[in-house]
Amino acid sequence: MLEKLKEQVLEANLSLPKYGLVTFTWGNVSGISREDGLVVIKPSGVPYETLKLEDLVVVDLEGNIVEGNLKPSSDTPTHLVLYKHFHDIGGIVHTHSPWATSWAQAGKAIPALGTTHADYFNGTIPCTRPMTKEEIEGEYELETGNVIVETFQSNGIDPNEIPSVLVHSHAPFNWGKDALEAVHNAVVLEEVAKLALHSFQINPELDSMDRVLLEKHYYRKHGANAYYGQTKK
Amino acid sequence: MLEKLKEQVLEANLSLPKYGLVTFTWGNVSGISREDGLVVIKPSGVPYETLKLEDLVVVDLEGNIVEGNLKPSSDTPTHLVLYKHFHDIGGIVHTHSPWATSWAQAGKAIPALGTTHADYFNGTIPCTRPMTKEEIEGEYELETGNVIVETFQSNGIDPNEIPSVLVHSHAPFNWGKDALEAVHNAVVLEEVAKLALHSFQINPELDSMDRVLLEKHYYRKHGANAYYGQTKK
Amino acid sequence: MLEKLKEQVLEANLSLPKYGLVTFTWGNVSGISREDGLVVIKPSGVPYETLKLEDLVVVDLEGNIVEGNLKPSSDTPTHLVLYKHFHDIGGIVHTHSPWATSWAQAGKAIPALGTTHADYFNGTIPCTRPMTKEEIEGEYELETGNVIVETFQSNGIDPNEIPSVLVHSHAPFNWGKDALEAVHNAVVLEEVAKLALHSFQINPELDSMDRVLLEKHYYRKHGANAYYGQTKK
Amino acid sequence: MLEKLKEQVLEANLSLPKYGLVTFTWGNVSGISREDGLVVIKPSGVPYETLKLEDLVVVDLEGNIVEGNLKPSSDTPTHLVLYKHFHDIGGIVHTHSPWATSWAQAGKAIPALGTTHADYFNGTIPCTRPMTKEEIEGEYELETGNVIVETFQSNGIDPNEIPSVLVHSHAPFNWGKDALEAVHNAVVLEEVAKLALHSFQINPELDSMDRVLLEKHYYRKHGANAYYGQTKK
Repeated sequence: MLEKLKEQVLEANLSLPKYGLVTFTWGNVSGISREDGLVVIKPSGVPYETLKLEDLVVVDLEGNIVEGNLKPSSDTPTHLVLYKHFHDIGGIVHTHSPWATSWAQAGKAIPALGTTHADYFNGTIPCTRPMTKEEIEGEYELETGNVIVETFQSNGIDPNEIPSVLVHSHAPFNWGKDALEAVHNAVVLEEVAKLALHSFQINPELDSMDRVLLEKHYYRKHGANAYYGQTKK
Repeated sequence: MLEKLKEQVLEANLSLPKYGLVTFTWGNVSGISREDGLVVIKPSGVPYETLKLEDLVVVDLEGNIVEGNLKPSSDTPTHLVLYKHFHDIGGIVHTHSPWATSWAQAGKAIPALGTTHADYFNGTIPCTRPMTKEEIEGEYELETGNVIVETFQSNGIDPNEIPSVLVHSHAPFNWGKDALEAVHNAVVLEEVAKLALHSFQINPELDSMDRVLLEKHYYRKHGANAYYGQTKK
Repeated sequence: MLEKLKEQVLEANLSLPKYGLVTFTWGNVSGISREDGLVVIKPSGVPYETLKLEDLVVVDLEGNIVEGNLKPSSDTPTHLVLYKHFHDIGGIVHTHSPWATSWAQAGKAIPALGTTHADYFNGTIPCTRPMTKEEIEGEYELETGNVIVETFQSNGIDPNEIPSVLVHSHAPFNWGKDALEAVHNAVVLEEVAKLALHSFQINPELDSMDRVLLEKHYYRKHGANAYYGQTKK
Repeated sequence: MLEKLKEQVLEANLSLPKYGLVTFTWGNVSGISREDGLVVIKPSGVPYETLKLEDLVVVDLEGNIVEGNLKPSSDTPTHLVLYKHFHDIGGIVHTHSPWATSWAQAGKAIPALGTTHADYFNGTIPCTRPMTKEEIEGEYELETGNVIVETFQSNGIDPNEIPSVLVHSHAPFNWGKDALEAVHNAVVLEEVAKLALHSFQINPELDSMDRVLLEKHYYRKHGANAYYGQTKK
């Protein structure tokens, strides 16, 4: 079942080490079939070098295993919460990519400082609040999803315009219209996180970029008036 | 038409990922035939892995497409302004190379701190002023070219002696006598930007290097009395 | 003798350059057979490119050479002290991996700042006190082992829960249930050391992570209630 | 003539890009035959990819070309001064390797902070004073050699025990008993320069390491009582 989706999710998972986003098994990508209400996700703790199509796990939105012989990623409940609340997204990736993780550990959002950021993110990339003792000791991975959703909803942030988040003391989650775009955004986040640290080291007084310039670049690539790239046929 | 120039522009574009200057499609190189008044440039949003000679676009200095089936780089108007005002240059490259982009985002010029810089740049590498709302919301890419030209003209900087600029909150543009030299200078800029940040971290009180030493190194490699390298036959 | 152990120790040694943990010959891995009371260790100063199974040296716990034509690593006495006092460990690796070594040179322990750390280390990774003149001028490598053991015992740290240490003004030692796990932990330490420096650069006020979150992640991967990865058959 | 020496100097030059020490043609290695009073050195400005044995230039200690069709490195006079004053050295390498160059640009010596440094350098790696206008405008490359020699002689530093120097606002020179050892030391310098910057970022109050520990490590690898590595047959 879902062979096309599985192939894409496999390709997206295998691209993580290629892009230098993961060490060992630290990361996972999923993709969703909205029509079927089913999610394909990496199994837990399986090395990328040996990951095969038949290792992928299919779960429904309640987390029940529909197909697969392996346990799904321990982060599966986080993915499911995001799919339930962010209705337009089709793929999710979680990594401990080092530059973005440094910001997450620091508990700091990444402000937009330049057009590299603006080409993909229409504003600051938020960092969640620290999770409570109850959340951590309860259904931890599900609560991780909840605190991400809370971060977007309570601050009026559109997850379609800011396709990444830093989970406090942890690491980033990224998403996109499908699994491949989610990984694409994870690569951009990592680059943007690196640039931001170095820009602050050069100029500690630095403030967020001009909002007009930010929107110019964001809408040059997104929405009805985008004019970057070739016209899709 | 312009087959030799196209080959050089293709080679220059393909060298960008080889030198680690670009992520995804973030960058573009052009070259000009001054006799024909025609510019060859990368098409917009096409991945380097699949870029072919026939994908390159030929435009005149007003931006009219003379040959090619694809849209030229969205940064084409910036390139054209530079070709019109900097009469000796034959190639231009724009990237978001991370060290130089960190300085651009910080809004800071890169002072000459050592002979690596001095071997290629006869002084500080400038950063443009922030662009105005009118410039950004108007013909943005053309105005980007204008603010670069203004930076050089209003400060009396010779673009032949400083073949790079940082566009504020954005990233660098570099040029040279042809497309390959422009890329060569982009590699040097990236190295110089990295060295400068680390030198300031070691010594925050650091000032620009001795002007006598700077000119010694610059003119060792440039101009009538250059003595670095082999004598051209 | 000990062919299986030798093969594992060879593989672990050869993985050091693969993971970017060593320059030249700076590093060594050993493994122990607890039943035989014998340790297999890299010979001193032999390049990884030419290292072969028959080059490995077998020593007893007093450092007597039991098999092998080459001198064992000059750090052998340090390894032996650790095997004698840390009874559950089966492999040890010493490297000068650059991020961890930067912390060791700085004389600073690495506090737990995020879940990457917490997934492997149940708390701060300690740095030893400086060694005394007597220790350095005496049996230096043996005393290096002693100061590591002292660091764990006097602070009540369980070496099974913190499988790495920074030796003051020197570099890290890491261990694990066998030589391969020791190298795995050395890779994680290097990543964690890099993340920690960058997190402090982003937020100099940063404090250790929430202890509840740390234990959640540590015990998600370790101990009776671990649920990360696939169930071992 | 000097075929063996040429082969070694070629190998040493070709190892520079392999070790990541050079960008483009920024670097050069030479070796000396003390019996013949002749130096083999890289030609100026020739890319490493195309460098061949017959491109190497043989000069005498006054800089006269004895063999070769190409111009020798523009830094040749610096090499010759060092060979004349540092009588035990057999090879010299100059690079703009980025971490060491960052310290040179900062005008700061690299203090010994850990055993990686101590294994190769018996103390601080000095930085020269800035050169005077007269020196720069005179026989610049020769004066560069003179200021290096002055740095060692006026501070009583033994070039055999500190085989590297940072030239102020410029970059490092390194040497050794032959060209290959000089390159080996250049790799170590680069690593030590990186470690030192990061250690100071972790602990800005950091002071030089304990002199007893420094000498312990230095003499573990050097001199009559060295015991690191295998006994030479």
